[in-house]
Amino acid sequence: MGDAATENGVRKATSPEEEHPRKAFGWAARDASGLFSPFAFSRRNNGDEDVTIKILYCGMCHSDLHVVRNEWARTAYPVVPGHEIVGMVTQVGGSVQKFKVGDRVGVGCMVNSCGSCHGCQQGLENHCPGLVFTYNSVNVDGTMTYGGYSDMIVVDQHFVIRFPENMPSDSGAPLLCAGITVYAPMKYHGLDQPGKHLGVVGLGGLGHVAVRFGKALGMKVTVISSSPGKEKEATERLGADAFLVSSDPGRMQAAMGTMDGIIDTVSAVHDVTPLMFLLKTRGKMIMAGAPEKPLQLDAFSLILGEKSIAGTCIGGVKETQEMIDFAAEHNITADIELVSMDRVNEAMERLSKGDVRYRFVIDIGNTLTAA
Amino acid sequence: MGDAATENGVRKATSPEEEHPRKAFGWAARDASGLFSPFAFSRRNNGDEDVTIKILYCGMCHSDLHVVRNEWARTAYPVVPGHEIVGMVTQVGGSVQKFKVGDRVGVGCMVNSCGSCHGCQQGLENHCPGLVFTYNSVNVDGTMTYGGYSDMIVVDQHFVIRFPENMPSDSGAPLLCAGITVYAPMKYHGLDQPGKHLGVVGLGGLGHVAVRFGKALGMKVTVISSSPGKEKEATERLGADAFLVSSDPGRMQAAMGTMDGIIDTVSAVHDVTPLMFLLKTRGKMIMAGAPEKPLQLDAFSLILGEKSIAGTCIGGVKETQEMIDFAAEHNITADIELVSMDRVNEAMERLSKGDVRYRFVIDIGNTLTAA
Repeated sequence: MGDAATENGVRKATSPEEEHPRKAFGWAARDASGLFSPFAFSRRNNGDEDVTIKILYCGMCHSDLHVVRNEWARTAYPVVPGHEIVGMVTQVGGSVQKFKVGDRVGVGCMVNSCGSCHGCQQGLENHCPGLVFTYNSVNVDGTMTYGGYSDMIVVDQHFVIRFPENMPSDSGAPLLCAGITVYAPMKYHGLDQPGKHLGVVGLGGLGHVAVRFGKALGMKVTVISSSPGKEKEATERLGADAFLVSSDPGRMQAAMGTMDGIIDTVSAVHDVTPLMFLLKTRGKMIMAGAPEKPLQLDAFSLILGEKSIAGTCIGGVKETQEMIDFAAEHNITADIELVSMDRVNEAMERLSKGDVRYRFVIDIGNTLTAA
Repeated sequence: MGDAATENGVRKATSPEEEHPRKAFGWAARDASGLFSPFAFSRRNNGDEDVTIKILYCGMCHSDLHVVRNEWARTAYPVVPGHEIVGMVTQVGGSVQKFKVGDRVGVGCMVNSCGSCHGCQQGLENHCPGLVFTYNSVNVDGTMTYGGYSDMIVVDQHFVIRFPENMPSDSGAPLLCAGITVYAPMKYHGLDQPGKHLGVVGLGGLGHVAVRFGKALGMKVTVISSSPGKEKEATERLGADAFLVSSDPGRMQAAMGTMDGIIDTVSAVHDVTPLMFLLKTRGKMIMAGAPEKPLQLDAFSLILGEKSIAGTCIGGVKETQEMIDFAAEHNITADIELVSMDRVNEAMERLSKGDVRYRFVIDIGNTLTAA
C-alpha cells in the first residue's frame, strides 16, 4: 500500500495512469452517456497475498449498464466495469499457496473486505461493511477499483476463484455474478431440495442460470414470463418443467399456491403481488433484481399464508467456489454471445433493450489491444 | 350437523334465530355503519366433540372494527364479532377428555379446520385452506359463525384453550389474538433468543404485548413510534429498553443496522423502507398489521443486507396454548379498559381513533342481558 493515494483523508490528484506502478489498459465509460473508449490506467504491484491475472474473458452484467449510465447515482467516472472475470494467473505473491502461475481462475464482484467482521468470519464477505467491489469502489489504499473490461488485474488471493478443468472460461464467466446471485439464495432459503417447486421470474442472464441450477438440484422449475414467445426456449432448451405467462389470469389462477419459492430476476418495474399468490404457505419470494422504483406490495399477499419477500446480494467467496464446482460437476454454464472489445458500445446498447441470449461475454484475451 | 342449513349446496333461508336449536343472544352490526344493536340468534347443540362455553369476557380487536365496517369488503351482515373470548365451560360432549364443566377456557380466531391438510397435521390450523374463523365465516354445516360479543358459544374441543389458574379472564382475553399474533412469528423467525434486539413498531394492542413477550424472552426491545409522547410509557411502564421516534432522522440514522428483527403492528398506511434500514444483515421485518393500501418498498432496502419482510397470521392451536402458558408463567397480560356491552358502539368509535390503552374488553358476563 506504499502507493496509497490518500493524504489526511484527501485523495491526491494522481491520475489513474500514474497512481500505481504497473501499466494497465482497458475500456472506460467517461460520463452518463455510458459510452466506452480506450483507457490507460495502472494497477498495484503484486503483494505477498496477491495474484496477478491476465484477463481472458469478462461477462457483461446488467449492473455494468446501470453503473456506466449512472442509473444508481453513485458512479465515479471514468469507470471500467466488469465483475465476471476469467483469466490466467501470471504472478503470485510469497504468501500465496492456493494458486500458481498458469492456473485458470475467476474474479467476481468483490476484491477486498475487512476480514474481521461478523460477515467475513462467517465467509459472507458480501455482508462486510468494508466490502470493496471489483469496480467503481474505493479500495483500502484510497484508489478506485477498475474491473474486468481490461487486460489484467491484481487481486488478493482470498477473492480468487479456482476454475475446474471442465468449466469453460467464456461461458463460465457469467456464473461469477449471475450464477452466485441465484445459487446463494436458493441454498440459504432452502430452495435446493429435490421435489420442491421453484418459480423463476424473467428469462435473462440470471433467470436462465437459475433454471439450470434448479434442475441440477432436482427441483421442479417453472419459468414465469411476460413473453409468451419464450415458452419453447424455457421448456425445450433450458429444461424447465413448466412455463407460465404472467399476463394470463386463468393460468396464474390455476398455479396459485403451488410454489415453494420464487426467484424474481426482473429489474424492470413490475407488480409483485400477483406473483406472491403463486407461493405455498410460508413460501419465499427472492428479489434478485432491483427495480428503480419502489415495489408496490399488498400486505395481505404477505399475511395470508405467512409468505415472505427477501432480498439477495451475490454470495460469499467460499460459496462462490462451491457454486462453480457444483456447476462444473453438472455441466452448468451460461448461454453467451461472445463480442470483441471494440464492439462493447453496441453490445451495451443491445443489453439495454434485452436483446441478448443471455449474456454478452467480451473476448478480452483475443481482442483487447493497447492503442 | 343435523341442523345443517345447506341443501344441495344452497343455503336455506333459515333465520339466524331458527337455524340451530339453542337460543343465543349478542350484539350485532347490521350494515357498514358498523353500529351494534341487540341480536337474537341460535347456536348448535353440543356435539360429542363440543364444549359449550358461557362467555364472560371478550376483547375488541382492531379486526372487529375492519369487519363491522366492511373495510375488507367481505362482511356478511348481521355480524357478531369477537375472537378474544374467555368463559366458563357449561357442557362437554361425550368424547371430550380435555375439559370439564366449570373450567375456565379461551377461544381465539379459529373454531374449525379440515384436520387433515399439511397445516392441520403440523398443528398450524391457521394455514388450513378450510379454516373456519370464529365469526363472519361459513362453518362446515353451511351456517355463519358468530363471535364472542354474545352470551355463549359451542366450539369443537380442539379449538378451546385452557386458561391457567393465575391468568386473569379479562386482561388475558386479548392474548388469544393480539398475543399469539406477535408470539408466533417471534418463535418462527427466531426472534425469541436472549440478547437479540427486537424492534416493535406501534404501541397498540399488539405492540404493547410484543414488548412484554420480548422482555420475558430476554431480548433487548426498542419501541419505534411516530408519537414522541409515548416514550415514558414504553420504557418506564412497559419495560422497553429504548424508544425511537420514527420521524427523527438523527436517531433513526444512529439506530441503523442494530436490530435482529422488527414486528410492525401498524395497520395505518406508512413507509416501511426507513424501518428496513434499522435491521442488521439478514434481519427480518414481520408485518402483523394490514394497511389498506399497498406497501411501498425500495428493493435496495431488501437487497443490501439481504433483509426480508414476512407476513404473519395468528398461530396454531397448540402454539396458542403454549403462548398462554408462557404468558401465565411470566405474568404477561394485556392492558385493558373494561366496558359494558351497551357501550360497545362508543368503544368502537374510540378504537377507530386509537383512543384506548391498549385493548377494550367487554364485560359480557356482568353486562350482557337479553332484552
